[in-house]
Amino acid sequence: MIKKILLFPFLLFPFFPSPGTHDLPQENSMSIFGLIEYADASPEVRAIYDDIMATRKTDWINNFWKAIAHDPVLLKRTWEDIKQIMAPGALDPLTKEMIYVAVSVSNQCEYCIASHTAAAKKKGMTDAQFKELISVVGMANETNRLVAGYQVEVDERFKIRS
Amino acid sequence: MIKKILLFPFLLFPFFPSPGTHDLPQENSMSIFGLIEYADASPEVRAIYDDIMATRKTDWINNFWKAIAHDPVLLKRTWEDIKQIMAPGALDPLTKEMIYVAVSVSNQCEYCIASHTAAAKKKGMTDAQFKELISVVGMANETNRLVAGYQVEVDERFKIRS
Amino acid sequence: MIKKILLFPFLLFPFFPSPGTHDLPQENSMSIFGLIEYADASPEVRAIYDDIMATRKTDWINNFWKAIAHDPVLLKRTWEDIKQIMAPGALDPLTKEMIYVAVSVSNQCEYCIASHTAAAKKKGMTDAQFKELISVVGMANETNRLVAGYQVEVDERFKIRS
Amino acid sequence: MIKKILLFPFLLFPFFPSPGTHDLPQENSMSIFGLIEYADASPEVRAIYDDIMATRKTDWINNFWKAIAHDPVLLKRTWEDIKQIMAPGALDPLTKEMIYVAVSVSNQCEYCIASHTAAAKKKGMTDAQFKELISVVGMANETNRLVAGYQVEVDERFKIRS
Amino acid sequence: MIKKILLFPFLLFPFFPSPGTHDLPQENSMSIFGLIEYADASPEVRAIYDDIMATRKTDWINNFWKAIAHDPVLLKRTWEDIKQIMAPGALDPLTKEMIYVAVSVSNQCEYCIASHTAAAKKKGMTDAQFKELISVVGMANETNRLVAGYQVEVDERFKIRS
Amino acid sequence: MIKKILLFPFLLFPFFPSPGTHDLPQENSMSIFGLIEYADASPEVRAIYDDIMATRKTDWINNFWKAIAHDPVLLKRTWEDIKQIMAPGALDPLTKEMIYVAVSVSNQCEYCIASHTAAAKKKGMTDAQFKELISVVGMANETNRLVAGYQVEVDERFKIRS
Repeated sequence: MIKKILLFPFLLFPFFPSPGTHDLPQENSMSIFGLIEYADASPEVRAIYDDIMATRKTDWINNFWKAIAHDPVLLKRTWEDIKQIMAPGALDPLTKEMIYVAVSVSNQCEYCIASHTAAAKKKGMTDAQFKELISVVGMANETNRLVAGYQVEVDERFKIRS
Repeated sequence: MIKKILLFPFLLFPFFPSPGTHDLPQENSMSIFGLIEYADASPEVRAIYDDIMATRKTDWINNFWKAIAHDPVLLKRTWEDIKQIMAPGALDPLTKEMIYVAVSVSNQCEYCIASHTAAAKKKGMTDAQFKELISVVGMANETNRLVAGYQVEVDERFKIRS
Repeated sequence: MIKKILLFPFLLFPFFPSPGTHDLPQENSMSIFGLIEYADASPEVRAIYDDIMATRKTDWINNFWKAIAHDPVLLKRTWEDIKQIMAPGALDPLTKEMIYVAVSVSNQCEYCIASHTAAAKKKGMTDAQFKELISVVGMANETNRLVAGYQVEVDERFKIRS
Repeated sequence: MIKKILLFPFLLFPFFPSPGTHDLPQENSMSIFGLIEYADASPEVRAIYDDIMATRKTDWINNFWKAIAHDPVLLKRTWEDIKQIMAPGALDPLTKEMIYVAVSVSNQCEYCIASHTAAAKKKGMTDAQFKELISVVGMANETNRLVAGYQVEVDERFKIRS
Repeated sequence: MIKKILLFPFLLFPFFPSPGTHDLPQENSMSIFGLIEYADASPEVRAIYDDIMATRKTDWINNFWKAIAHDPVLLKRTWEDIKQIMAPGALDPLTKEMIYVAVSVSNQCEYCIASHTAAAKKKGMTDAQFKELISVVGMANETNRLVAGYQVEVDERFKIRS
Repeated sequence: MIKKILLFPFLLFPFFPSPGTHDLPQENSMSIFGLIEYADASPEVRAIYDDIMATRKTDWINNFWKAIAHDPVLLKRTWEDIKQIMAPGALDPLTKEMIYVAVSVSNQCEYCIASHTAAAKKKGMTDAQFKELISVVGMANETNRLVAGYQVEVDERFKIRS
């Protein structure tokens, strides 16, 4: 929303480090407890950060992990769950990432949409795929409510167990 | 929820037609205006029904369409939108169907979960794929709220436009 | 969902009282604490029931009130709020009732959809109005997610204060 | 949220064009693919833009359309659906717009609340009507959950089909 | 919803085992893959079932676990997460269970409301506590939407980091 | 999201009053009708403001109340409801505040998360309690969807009325 004016400070303070090109602590960054940068992390947290970067073949940690690192138990559990769930399996990693985007769009979680859309692109999602994904999410949200409004009951044929 | 006792009436009234094996009108079936069966449909509605069955290579119409057929304009618009959106494109039809299931599970729309899970199976979804799909949906719903609770702001790197 | 077989018991037990034509206690009816019928209500609860029936010009109380009557403070507060909010004002009662249906459909609250659709009909909602209402609710749910997926920022023109 | 400081840049750069008074491209504006301005639009997209402006009797296009114009099929389908659904019918356009606001508030879609509130005002919504609308939306969201918490079952009387 | 007629079959078939008093397989029970009973479970699944019963000091397994047991990886991960999260800590187990109910009511998940309300009662929740819990959940859902409708921005004082 | 640059204006305009340390009107603050400050409030609104500050033992009013004060009937009703609901009872005020946070996180209402987290802290919530609270909210949102995806039906044992 305010992204367009984020450039102004840098026009005024050209010595201010450019965002997105380094991993220095963001002094005023938010999140309820602030963000734990790699340099400030405990060995326990740093080990998770290392595993995240190794698994994702990347050299930085996004804010989500730095924010929940204040609860190392949550950090460890969430990372291990995500690592297990998002690994290649019966579904390929890109399909899983697009499903993640679909849920996040449906829930209107701005952070999650931005981060998982970026992750999906990194895994090969094309613009055309993204567009079709969003169309399906929109349509599903519409028909979910048509069903509710018309009070449609489940067809007997759909009740057959697997 | 009540599916297990649906068999009782048939024990009592063996002459009663078995559900799921025919398309006769369901006399007491619900939905706010009832269901419009093929035999009772106007030519306009019947044309949509025919197109649904031809497109899906099936010989029956599920309750959703029979319920919204009371508003032929809605029926036509919804079918044409779905037909366009769910057609093969940059994403294959199975992936689209699984995204539809993901949204419906996230929204907890019982009818939509049942119908699109059935549709996904028909398009080849294996049990293993379904299980991984649901795991991703569960995880996404969890982290969507962790992000909200910790008030995580979007990383600058995720704000780069496509 | 199970409505179609609700008739069976009456075929079997013709002496069983017909639903919807009396206000006798429903012995096996659910809700976490059961339902408080008028005959069993405290004077405090009965006074609210009387006001509900007088205000709505009806001679029965629907399950919602009978269920929350177990918390008389909640019953009183909720009724007084609803009475104030749903009274004729800048918006007519039918429009308010349709907005109530719109929210309930969007939230997929089966009870609320059924009860407020019935209330809207009593206030004059035609089938044609209901159909257009549901179409708008479906469309709004779709575009709400298109906005999220495409990460659209608010136009400056929309930020002008009233 | 940050709207109050949007004025600062203009204090510093008085030659910067004032927002909301022109339709020049917003260089740094967001949305995942950026916004397609009229001047840069394909004939296909421009035709939709023209129809939007003609139908709405306005001379500008809001960000939603400019954002989804990257998918011309989506742009066309969404516009045609909205045009059909929001046209005068059994419900007047203002009532439809207020229902749209109700759903968007319930879903907490900031963009949709801002844009459809503006649209409703343009169609004649008074401040008093807006206030009553929001009160109903708030109340419906409350009672939707009271129903769930108390596990209230639908009254037989509400199951009567139309 | 249909609970009141669940008694009818037993009137007709008095030899039919009473529900809720045994753990025999429910032949017609639903869930997409059916339920895996203890007797039919693999050693891997049975070990989780044993840990659930030991941890909860109970002698039965509720449907949720029997349903997801078809995905033993999900069963294990979910149980271990729940066991860790719901253990006594800075918050006592009853408070945690009530928070679980609050979220489930807000999301309108019928199963989760029923199961976690039962769990909270087992942990000592009184009827008075339940009633206050539901009132808070209702109110929070209302004001969440008042905030959205009035587009209220966060106070500076609330932005102070912990 | 933009909080980090909120400091820039003060670097540029050191005479500008610091946010969060006074209650002067925020000239450009948002909310659809702006905020009604104490100095500008009608006696009717001022009486509610006084009661809010007296009840909460504080000397300022947060934006939510200033925003809805444009509808004095809503202001009065909402405050009286909140005052009644959040008062000490069978549940202590801190537990109620944490339930409020849980719902707001689940609904992803940024304002409500910020304001009720602040309120909970004022009532004694520790960081450890907050962390456990968010973990429960995340887990509940996950299992709510696992239940939906696996279409789990409610156990008979959970249907026993209180």
